[in-house]
Amino acid sequence: MNDLKKYIAEGIGTMFLVLLACGSAVLAGPSIGGYGVGVCFGLVLVCLCYCLGNISGCHVNPAVSLGVYLSGRMSLKDMLCYWLFQMGGAVVGAAFLFWFVNMNPEFNFGGITENGGAIYNLATNVLQPGATSGMALLMEALLTFFFVFIILGATDANVGWGKFAGIGIGLALGLVNIVGIPVDNCSVNPARSFGPAVFCPGAFHDFWIMVVGPFVGAIIAVIAWKVVSPYIAKGNR
Amino acid sequence: MNDLKKYIAEGIGTMFLVLLACGSAVLAGPSIGGYGVGVCFGLVLVCLCYCLGNISGCHVNPAVSLGVYLSGRMSLKDMLCYWLFQMGGAVVGAAFLFWFVNMNPEFNFGGITENGGAIYNLATNVLQPGATSGMALLMEALLTFFFVFIILGATDANVGWGKFAGIGIGLALGLVNIVGIPVDNCSVNPARSFGPAVFCPGAFHDFWIMVVGPFVGAIIAVIAWKVVSPYIAKGNR
Amino acid sequence: MNDLKKYIAEGIGTMFLVLLACGSAVLAGPSIGGYGVGVCFGLVLVCLCYCLGNISGCHVNPAVSLGVYLSGRMSLKDMLCYWLFQMGGAVVGAAFLFWFVNMNPEFNFGGITENGGAIYNLATNVLQPGATSGMALLMEALLTFFFVFIILGATDANVGWGKFAGIGIGLALGLVNIVGIPVDNCSVNPARSFGPAVFCPGAFHDFWIMVVGPFVGAIIAVIAWKVVSPYIAKGNR
Amino acid sequence: MNDLKKYIAEGIGTMFLVLLACGSAVLAGPSIGGYGVGVCFGLVLVCLCYCLGNISGCHVNPAVSLGVYLSGRMSLKDMLCYWLFQMGGAVVGAAFLFWFVNMNPEFNFGGITENGGAIYNLATNVLQPGATSGMALLMEALLTFFFVFIILGATDANVGWGKFAGIGIGLALGLVNIVGIPVDNCSVNPARSFGPAVFCPGAFHDFWIMVVGPFVGAIIAVIAWKVVSPYIAKGNR
Repeated sequence: MNDLKKYIAEGIGTMFLVLLACGSAVLAGPSIGGYGVGVCFGLVLVCLCYCLGNISGCHVNPAVSLGVYLSGRMSLKDMLCYWLFQMGGAVVGAAFLFWFVNMNPEFNFGGITENGGAIYNLATNVLQPGATSGMALLMEALLTFFFVFIILGATDANVGWGKFAGIGIGLALGLVNIVGIPVDNCSVNPARSFGPAVFCPGAFHDFWIMVVGPFVGAIIAVIAWKVVSPYIAKGNR
Repeated sequence: MNDLKKYIAEGIGTMFLVLLACGSAVLAGPSIGGYGVGVCFGLVLVCLCYCLGNISGCHVNPAVSLGVYLSGRMSLKDMLCYWLFQMGGAVVGAAFLFWFVNMNPEFNFGGITENGGAIYNLATNVLQPGATSGMALLMEALLTFFFVFIILGATDANVGWGKFAGIGIGLALGLVNIVGIPVDNCSVNPARSFGPAVFCPGAFHDFWIMVVGPFVGAIIAVIAWKVVSPYIAKGNR
Repeated sequence: MNDLKKYIAEGIGTMFLVLLACGSAVLAGPSIGGYGVGVCFGLVLVCLCYCLGNISGCHVNPAVSLGVYLSGRMSLKDMLCYWLFQMGGAVVGAAFLFWFVNMNPEFNFGGITENGGAIYNLATNVLQPGATSGMALLMEALLTFFFVFIILGATDANVGWGKFAGIGIGLALGLVNIVGIPVDNCSVNPARSFGPAVFCPGAFHDFWIMVVGPFVGAIIAVIAWKVVSPYIAKGNR
Repeated sequence: MNDLKKYIAEGIGTMFLVLLACGSAVLAGPSIGGYGVGVCFGLVLVCLCYCLGNISGCHVNPAVSLGVYLSGRMSLKDMLCYWLFQMGGAVVGAAFLFWFVNMNPEFNFGGITENGGAIYNLATNVLQPGATSGMALLMEALLTFFFVFIILGATDANVGWGKFAGIGIGLALGLVNIVGIPVDNCSVNPARSFGPAVFCPGAFHDFWIMVVGPFVGAIIAVIAWKVVSPYIAKGNR
């Protein structure tokens, strides 16, 4: 019973991530720019962790679930169910966005900021003009490495932050988006890319990058955390 | 005696919410834009929770009080008194703003940002040009669903954040405003819309949306939280 | 001995408040605007509370010390010594700023943002064009009422946040500046206005407003907090 | 064994600091400006403290390690090894950035913001036009004084914030960058300046300033903290 609750929590959480974070790009992106969109990604994850952190762990991201699974902290069955509900929730969130976009021609799944900066196709992760597949793959892997590394550290039983982990984790997602948006529109989350792409013909062209990059980054993070995590935990602070 | 203190606390809190958050739109809106106004909504609620959270719960919002009441955490009488003082406080806060607007022609209850983004009538929640009643209703319901969902989770006795809940709750209000302002000027709070509307002829035209939308959203949030909140609370984190 | 340490802590803290918060206006103001300057005021106070909160209480503001004194939480002698070191620290911080301003003609004690918004004389609190003495007095009193009200609540022995109070207090100062800068350049702190004014001929013309307004606001905050603070403290949360 | 883990943690941390904070200037700087870059410096340090704070203390900065060593909180051997791994990590992070810069002509180690503000050579700390060596030296010393002073207070065994210190420390780095970037591009961290300079011919010209300034500031901070830190620690709060 509680298992199903966890899965539903992941679904609702990922729905809100797409609705509000991708939504900030779609609805407010031209005026708030890549910086504002990045901050919104961070804020929505902090808030969701406040609400769902003690229920499902609030992954709302298949790459995070992979990292948690590989670290031995969740079962294979749980990971696969998390993936399913994350993808489903993302599609529901994107469906709401799609409806708003269809209602008002000022809203768009991509576009140009008031200052001329390109946030074209930000919501769907079609690559920025100028980005090659190699650049996008490396950037996704590096950013997800950082993001999952912070998660594993902040939620570690010995040296982590307990229930406060969510604040640092959310801020990490915000930072990662601010830095990554100008390069490849930043995903670090296959579900967040999958949802909006369902409603945008052509957006699946680069979708594989948003799966392979984050998964590779998560695997590196698991290894790196194993390297630095201490046996006894009391370092000189 | 302590009951009256709680009601007064709600009144002072809602006064400051209107004075400082709606005030950020009226006094600084053209230079800080929708992003800055959203951040100010978040900051004022975080600060008020620091001060009033342990006194009245710091709802400062009739839709929040409705959600808390429907969750069985407050009495009907308390909810109605909260509503009364929230509306009253909002009018007092708006009266101060109205005085400043009358003193300097540069201040306005709406307007255009320096970059050309419309924040017209943001303080009073007259709909943005391009927004239909249906869009505004759906957006208010979705955003309030998120906002009250976060509140119910963050303040839950088993899986919540205790006295730290206020930080996540305030950030949620900020996020909701950043995303919602470009669509319908974002209320999620009937009292926050009522106060400024008293001083702006015509602003009551769409006021019903700012009551129905948030109330529907709060009801959905109560149901959703019942669905995901665990019986035993210790999930795999 | 520890008394002198407290006074020195207030002096160093106020020096950094002027150097970094007024400094953000003087050195970075044209590019970061009133929003960025407000955020810097908030950040510097959060940081100083992290460092000095458990030493002197980190008032760095004569109006705050007045409120704390009137609430019966500090002695008259301590308040007067705090005032002295706060004023002295502010002058030292402003002296550093004055040196940088003299070295590079791009730096100024006031100016215009890149987007055309006026932050003229922000550092010295010479009133914005369009602001009357009455507007400035009312705004300073209202903003200081809010700021000191939050401080008294957040640091209350029964319903406060303990050592975490500093985060909410710093954010309150940031918010107050974002809202107040467009009206009267926002002080809420006589020492913060005194320091830069020493180096700017004419800046003392409106200095009385930055003393009377904040002091009146602090007094109102003490009264309001007495009204709402509970006897037993366990409200329905 | 745990010693080596600490050193590797410092290396990985400093790599991410350069990749993501300097990276925000290189990849997103023109659109997010000095304010956004400063915020990114703050965010990355908060996140890294969440992850590495309990392993190595998360200095990721030779000047911080100097201050901690001079305060008697770490051994000389540890400090020297920290320095080595910090420099090494910074070079690795800068190498990734250099690759992205070479891939897309829109990315640059310096540049001009969309609003015309100069962030020229921000990543490498070549001085801003208009900055003299004296201004840069004084600014670096003052900012590092503040930064290390906050660190020593926030991590103090008696009056500090325990594991929450990282939040205040990260915010301090963000603030310091917002204020310092318009003056001299802000380093306060020799390793952060060393990494990018390796890949930019000519960038070592002013590198000595980014060593001497921060080291002097750290020494002053150690002295100032000794002056204000109490013997008994319970002041009137």
